[in-house]
Amino acid sequence: MPTLLQIDFPTEGPWGEQMAAAYAELADLISRTPGLRWKIWTEREEDGISGGIYLFDDESSARAYLAEHTARLSSFGISDIRALVLDVNETLTATSRGPLSA
Amino acid sequence: MPTLLQIDFPTEGPWGEQMAAAYAELADLISRTPGLRWKIWTEREEDGISGGIYLFDDESSARAYLAEHTARLSSFGISDIRALVLDVNETLTATSRGPLSA
Repeated sequence: MPTLLQIDFPTEGPWGEQMAAAYAELADLISRTPGLRWKIWTEREEDGISGGIYLFDDESSARAYLAEHTARLSSFGISDIRALVLDVNETLTATSRGPLSA
Repeated sequence: MPTLLQIDFPTEGPWGEQMAAAYAELADLISRTPGLRWKIWTEREEDGISGGIYLFDDESSARAYLAEHTARLSSFGISDIRALVLDVNETLTATSRGPLSA
């Protein structure tokens, strides 16, 4: 069953193109995470927030990644990480064109 | 520029197939929201949380929907709604296969 992981945290940046340059290698590493279908990278400079929305094949993949990523974010000096591991209501999501494939 | 809306709130249900039946008409209505590319419906019975991840064409569409949906959730008796309006880092998202099309 697909599992959605929602993460956000306060940060002072980088943002936009500088963020893309700073995390290019990390994005490549993350893209090869076992069980990961996709990740959308989120950011909001005016609110000082970054994060990600992830879709995994199952809950165990999501939780394994969350443990690894939380440790990585902490090593970057990031705290106050808010993470939710959520099920997807596939019937309702189909009605609203939600993308659940790998 | 695509804008991601992340919403979650505490709820006592319904869940799963009962949730899908209860909100089938609402899902159809929401699917026709101006500027909405897609919505993934989220839920987590053991944590008492529901919500949604949305992708809009732009921030104004996202904010218009958020105002409408917050009022609707309040009319259902739902409070403590947490909502973030976020930009998408399209370069990093492309690396991790994030689905940004309508």
